[in-house]
Amino acid sequence: MKVAKFGGSSVANAKQIKKVANIIKSDSSRKVIVVSAPGKRFSDDVKMTDLLIELCYAKQQNQDHDLQLQNIMVRFQEIIEDLSLDQSILEDIQQTIEKYLQFDISPMAQLDALKSIGEDSSAKIVSAYLKHLGLNASYVNPKEAGIFVSNEPGNAQLLPESFSRIYKLREREGVSVVPGFFGYTENNDLVTFSRGGSDITGAILAAGTKASLYENFTDVDSVFAVNPNFVENPKDITVLTYKEMRELSYAGFSVFHDEALIPAFKEEIPVCIKNTNNPEAPGTMVVAERDSTDQCVVGIASDVGFCSLYVSKFLMNREVGFGRKLLNIFEDEGISFEHAPSGIDDMSVIFRDHLFTPEKEQIVIDRIRNELHVDTVSIHRDLAVVMVVGEGLVNTIGVAAKATASFAKAGINIDMINQGSSEVSMMFGVHAVDLEKAIQSLYKEFFTEDESNLTFPSAVARGHQ
Amino acid sequence: MKVAKFGGSSVANAKQIKKVANIIKSDSSRKVIVVSAPGKRFSDDVKMTDLLIELCYAKQQNQDHDLQLQNIMVRFQEIIEDLSLDQSILEDIQQTIEKYLQFDISPMAQLDALKSIGEDSSAKIVSAYLKHLGLNASYVNPKEAGIFVSNEPGNAQLLPESFSRIYKLREREGVSVVPGFFGYTENNDLVTFSRGGSDITGAILAAGTKASLYENFTDVDSVFAVNPNFVENPKDITVLTYKEMRELSYAGFSVFHDEALIPAFKEEIPVCIKNTNNPEAPGTMVVAERDSTDQCVVGIASDVGFCSLYVSKFLMNREVGFGRKLLNIFEDEGISFEHAPSGIDDMSVIFRDHLFTPEKEQIVIDRIRNELHVDTVSIHRDLAVVMVVGEGLVNTIGVAAKATASFAKAGINIDMINQGSSEVSMMFGVHAVDLEKAIQSLYKEFFTEDESNLTFPSAVARGHQ
Repeated sequence: MKVAKFGGSSVANAKQIKKVANIIKSDSSRKVIVVSAPGKRFSDDVKMTDLLIELCYAKQQNQDHDLQLQNIMVRFQEIIEDLSLDQSILEDIQQTIEKYLQFDISPMAQLDALKSIGEDSSAKIVSAYLKHLGLNASYVNPKEAGIFVSNEPGNAQLLPESFSRIYKLREREGVSVVPGFFGYTENNDLVTFSRGGSDITGAILAAGTKASLYENFTDVDSVFAVNPNFVENPKDITVLTYKEMRELSYAGFSVFHDEALIPAFKEEIPVCIKNTNNPEAPGTMVVAERDSTDQCVVGIASDVGFCSLYVSKFLMNREVGFGRKLLNIFEDEGISFEHAPSGIDDMSVIFRDHLFTPEKEQIVIDRIRNELHVDTVSIHRDLAVVMVVGEGLVNTIGVAAKATASFAKAGINIDMINQGSSEVSMMFGVHAVDLEKAIQSLYKEFFTEDESNLTFPSAVARGHQ
Repeated sequence: MKVAKFGGSSVANAKQIKKVANIIKSDSSRKVIVVSAPGKRFSDDVKMTDLLIELCYAKQQNQDHDLQLQNIMVRFQEIIEDLSLDQSILEDIQQTIEKYLQFDISPMAQLDALKSIGEDSSAKIVSAYLKHLGLNASYVNPKEAGIFVSNEPGNAQLLPESFSRIYKLREREGVSVVPGFFGYTENNDLVTFSRGGSDITGAILAAGTKASLYENFTDVDSVFAVNPNFVENPKDITVLTYKEMRELSYAGFSVFHDEALIPAFKEEIPVCIKNTNNPEAPGTMVVAERDSTDQCVVGIASDVGFCSLYVSKFLMNREVGFGRKLLNIFEDEGISFEHAPSGIDDMSVIFRDHLFTPEKEQIVIDRIRNELHVDTVSIHRDLAVVMVVGEGLVNTIGVAAKATASFAKAGINIDMINQGSSEVSMMFGVHAVDLEKAIQSLYKEFFTEDESNLTFPSAVARGHQ
């Protein structure tokens, strides 16, 4: 059996829901369906979840909220009418909203309840439409599905005992349509996951039912090997491993929230990223293992907004504890460091720029000067990180040579190379202004067939260019 | 004025001392001369300092020590007779030894006093020989020279007030010959520097007299660009900077102890490494700054005996303080780490193998498992480190490409690349078995003229070779 999750764009309107129904009908092994709240129908549209949040805030601030409620009901009405479904579903949705608006609970708990309406209604509508088409389908509330969570509004954590309950979903006849994004506490309180939580529900149900496949339907045919903003029509990734996915997600890949997939990863359930608008496309498989001899590098990711702090101190390498003390200062100030390359008498710390407010900068630099007695300390902003990702990296000779040659060809100075810990990635630091050229050159090197003339210029001093 | 220091091989016998005298005579600006104890005359010979240590141990253990004393006196006698010097010098040396043997002081202090006899006698002999040749030369005791130190036997530290006293050496007429290796405390106790301390004395006197040049006479024409055990007849380094010297020294370059030069470095006194046996050779200059556009890479150094500890933990990069905690464990166990490359979910720590006894290994691994709750932890031994060193690295495009291409050509897998902190070096980790090939290939890439065909093979999967 398969678990299929459909994202917001797949249930944004009746036209999309019809595509979803066709996808479900076309494969009888798609037994558990998870749906998001209706997403944007056009680029300036507002997502259903945001409408629900507006409604909740208006109510909690004792403002008139008829308009907010009407916006919500109009959208559901349109979908229900366009699908020729019974009006009773609309009434059911409205009653649920009214009930939650009257709840005498904490504002956070009420917000969670109202936010869940989007997914919950999608599940009601989709199951009704499947039945309307003659399928044996039913709406299954997360409680019935067995999703029990901790009482942390907006950040629910699954309780481990849920898995055995979820497994029973397999026994249900027909198609079970479960709303994503929320679960229930043992005390029957509705609590939502963090945003993007339908992906979490999907992964949990795939893991709990020990599905043969978890299909994640989005609006792209597959994951690209590189950001299409940098390279026109980049190649698709057909298969990538969990590890590769994670490294790519770190540096700018945002097809979905990689951490949401953790439950599926842990049970080694294969994941397939597919397109609701083009279900025939094979999509991208995310698996535990792949044959890396086919393709050593699977993708190139990048991210900007990094900052580097450099310290030098004569005889640093004789000083046991220097590196630890430096990192300790970052920790004390709540700054998570990304990397810490070191020389004999110097060390750099790479971290996200946004963590380094002018205030923090002053504190950190003062502490480094006063506590570590360094010779110099300096900050370099506008650093970009480029990651070459692939399971084959660790055992393939010449990958570093190809990557660095591509930078040399493009005339790009490499600020940092970090290789040696991750077995699936190689990381380069470049100036942010060089990022686009860097990505394009790497893509050409690793993903285009024309690899015949892999030559590169001799080292050229920058000052002489 | 110049300060010239002559090492043990330069004063090992009369023939060598004659060369030293010729060198001093040939340049009247060589006003301050520092000498070591007589070194080895042939490969199986024993150094004078070791004979003196034997004598001291025999005496302190109340053994008969006539033989040890005789060994020492025979060597001095031979030198003095071969130089046709007055027998009174030999008597002076013997009286000094006898006096120190009778000293009623701590064993450590007595050892320091006896160890100093080698350098002290060299200075007496050389100054006498220079006078014999008609030069205005005199023996200057370190106390007279102004070298005042802390009372740490075998590890004396210069007292800062020494510098102003040493500066007065400039005012002395003729050539001052100062024994290396020791100084005096304010209480008149003789204390030696750490082993190799004649280099320290030389650098201190060069700094204190603000010499225009500090010449360090050894038995090699210059510093080689690479270890001659790996490459036949490697190129000489004509000029290198203090920073380059320091990075090269870290990884296996052992022409002299780089830390001994610190006093000279601090005063920015240029240092010249020259050969007593071939003083016409220009030698290697060590300076504060050089024009790096001539030659971006100045040398290739390497060292073996490194070990790498790898840990992985899912979502490690979300855990503020993980890196610090890991390094803390190393610090607690007294293990100085060299580098710490990190990925998203993993981190490696590179350190010297000899620090990691089986006992320490067990403690460190247990602590990492119990305190950091990692997913995996593993140890990789037999790692070698290769450093490509040059002031031009940071601003030169294509150096990483050339270096990594040379590894690829030689079929060598790179375990680690660490670039991004030091401005003058790029570091590679390889398996120790690949080290020789790696060095040879890098040398060919950076130091031979034949750079016409800088091509490299496409990435090749190791398993397919």
